[in-house]
Amino acid sequence: MAQGTLLYSQSGGVTAVINATASGVITEARSRGIKVLAARNGILGALREDLVDTSKETATAIRGLAHTPGGAFGSCRYKLKSVEEDAAKYERLLDVFRAHDVRWFLYNGGNDSADTANKVSKLAARFGYPLTCIGVPKTIDNDLAVTDCCPGFGSAAKYTAVSVREAALDVAAMAETSTRVFIYEAMGRHAGWLAAAAGLAGKGPDEAPHLILFPERPYDEADFLARVRQVVDRVGWCVVVASEGIRTADGRFVADSGGGKDSFGHTQLGGVASYLAGRVKDQLGLKVHWTLPDYLQRSARHLASRTDVDQAIAVGRAAVRFALEGRNATMPVIVRTSDRPYRWKIGSAPLHKVANHEKTFPKSFIRRDGYGISDKARTYLEPLIRGEAPPPYGKDGIPTYVTLKNVPVKKKLPAWEG
Amino acid sequence: MAQGTLLYSQSGGVTAVINATASGVITEARSRGIKVLAARNGILGALREDLVDTSKETATAIRGLAHTPGGAFGSCRYKLKSVEEDAAKYERLLDVFRAHDVRWFLYNGGNDSADTANKVSKLAARFGYPLTCIGVPKTIDNDLAVTDCCPGFGSAAKYTAVSVREAALDVAAMAETSTRVFIYEAMGRHAGWLAAAAGLAGKGPDEAPHLILFPERPYDEADFLARVRQVVDRVGWCVVVASEGIRTADGRFVADSGGGKDSFGHTQLGGVASYLAGRVKDQLGLKVHWTLPDYLQRSARHLASRTDVDQAIAVGRAAVRFALEGRNATMPVIVRTSDRPYRWKIGSAPLHKVANHEKTFPKSFIRRDGYGISDKARTYLEPLIRGEAPPPYGKDGIPTYVTLKNVPVKKKLPAWEG
Repeated sequence: MAQGTLLYSQSGGVTAVINATASGVITEARSRGIKVLAARNGILGALREDLVDTSKETATAIRGLAHTPGGAFGSCRYKLKSVEEDAAKYERLLDVFRAHDVRWFLYNGGNDSADTANKVSKLAARFGYPLTCIGVPKTIDNDLAVTDCCPGFGSAAKYTAVSVREAALDVAAMAETSTRVFIYEAMGRHAGWLAAAAGLAGKGPDEAPHLILFPERPYDEADFLARVRQVVDRVGWCVVVASEGIRTADGRFVADSGGGKDSFGHTQLGGVASYLAGRVKDQLGLKVHWTLPDYLQRSARHLASRTDVDQAIAVGRAAVRFALEGRNATMPVIVRTSDRPYRWKIGSAPLHKVANHEKTFPKSFIRRDGYGISDKARTYLEPLIRGEAPPPYGKDGIPTYVTLKNVPVKKKLPAWEG
Repeated sequence: MAQGTLLYSQSGGVTAVINATASGVITEARSRGIKVLAARNGILGALREDLVDTSKETATAIRGLAHTPGGAFGSCRYKLKSVEEDAAKYERLLDVFRAHDVRWFLYNGGNDSADTANKVSKLAARFGYPLTCIGVPKTIDNDLAVTDCCPGFGSAAKYTAVSVREAALDVAAMAETSTRVFIYEAMGRHAGWLAAAAGLAGKGPDEAPHLILFPERPYDEADFLARVRQVVDRVGWCVVVASEGIRTADGRFVADSGGGKDSFGHTQLGGVASYLAGRVKDQLGLKVHWTLPDYLQRSARHLASRTDVDQAIAVGRAAVRFALEGRNATMPVIVRTSDRPYRWKIGSAPLHKVANHEKTFPKSFIRRDGYGISDKARTYLEPLIRGEAPPPYGKDGIPTYVTLKNVPVKKKLPAWEG
């Protein structure tokens, strides 16, 4: 059996299924007799020697992680600079790894985390310490390079499509005497992946969402309002899905338009849906409602995609295998082998091909008129929201989400003065 | 067998389960050989003679209604005045009823709808037309008198509790380096029922939601901000649930504070969560996120409460029985016969005891400190979100919600000039 400890950590914005990956990691490592510690709050926990011992958790708890949203060990947004610039931090990391015999480090996150993992992976060669560093993919933004899709995205996408379908049924029923226009704000500061997923809620041009605003296309207010008017005239009501990242032709974020200060000097928080709703009301005189689901869309484990949960667990298990095989500086990725039927397998990518690259949303995924998704987008997106994986519910009507004991590992080093 | 036609109609804001009531109505009537027409868009459809023939729908479609949110026949917000003031409209209604041999009229809605049903119920005596009018309860606001709870509320309550629990797990994981305060805006302009339901997401004072703002208590900004500070200092992060209906001591809606016009003269749409988030940011300097679920909370059939669905179907079935028994001017209601175990049965209420009355949120449901729910509230609320009743999902990963054919009934009268 391999000797040493595996250190796992969660990084960046959490998702409905990042704990499913953790569950996969711990289950796979346990089956191989490998001890797993977890760093609290991402790389910060590693620097602070703030570690927990996952062997203190029951098998039931680890299975339960697979249906629990959030980040069971805490996450962080914290970027390490290069080994040269942040030398002291890397040396501290090595001290912590040495102190706890960490031979395998798994960093579970998005773009920035792949970058961090890539930097840490270089420690092995530089300091002659036998460390294998593996990046594990995760992000609702679906913007990691190489992998066909990112664990976390499918569930957020399913939440988006289902929520838009449901709200549209409400609006359709009430349009005669109440709300005519409904605006849904989807996450995605840089790319329209989640806004596009809303397109799965309907098919023909008269089915909601009638208009999708992508960050990939400049927001043209006159054109947008004219189209809302056309849809309302034709269908009787209109559902709009807007990405939080849309910008005007001069590059200004529309979300910032609604912000600023009010006459009392109070901060006005912006938001795309709020802004667009105000324009529809002012310019078209139509009754409008809007929603900002915010974190609900990335934590809705109750509505997770089966495909997404399966992939999240699979990348966790594969990461352990890669680690034990000594495949330093790699990331397990999802490879799509067939669209119909949808088939996928685990492949691998060198971390340097993931770090600081971004998978952009293809122009070919946007419908010719610019306000919907193409058939190509449907073919790509639809399998990712397929299947259900509901959590168990308690007698109290709420999912039985797991809280880990997170038993701290005794510190061996002086406190970090970071 | 009874002779005549039963006319069913949906009114007011729709819910995740009003169609379950429709399913109960149609199923029960079919089993008794009674023909059911539905008026489109509530009472407007009756006035316009805009009726559909539900006998054209398959049994599968009617069963499917029980898991489909929205209002399958359309709804409306439209208030009839007294029989004296709106005489022409009531005469028109009678003409339509006569033309289609409508002997039973079921009006499915909230407070205003009970009032309309109550007025229509008087036509029988006044004009000697043999009509039995039954009100059927529905509202996510849970503010109907007499009934222990209102169909529609339990599912919105479950959505609220589960969403708050899930988002709280996200915030807890990220608080170290990101969002410290999360604010959830719950529907409820007049009463804190849905905000209170969020309280089911956690138990002790350190579990989310940490602070609930009820419309029943004046909003005291200094006190609120001090408590947010305290929770963040103690727990590390803070989840706030605010009812959209909170007001300051002088009676002003807090939601209106964030509104008005910006410096370009554009409408700024207000909102409680947006406003509170701005205050937390300005006054406490903490990173804050907020959500406005809006219609998502009342259309989330995918997360319906089993109790709620059962009760929604039961009031529909009972309404048909009441109608056939000639119990004019009544409403089937939910009677709670036991808290532990939770047991309920169908009872009846005279419409005049429901119309224009409002069930207020009991002061005793608010925790002594004013920012949470009491044990008494838990005992009342918890059974209402109990049990799951997920819709079937298609291969595309989206619930298979039903769209009715809604075959129009041939008009027999001249158009209504209303």
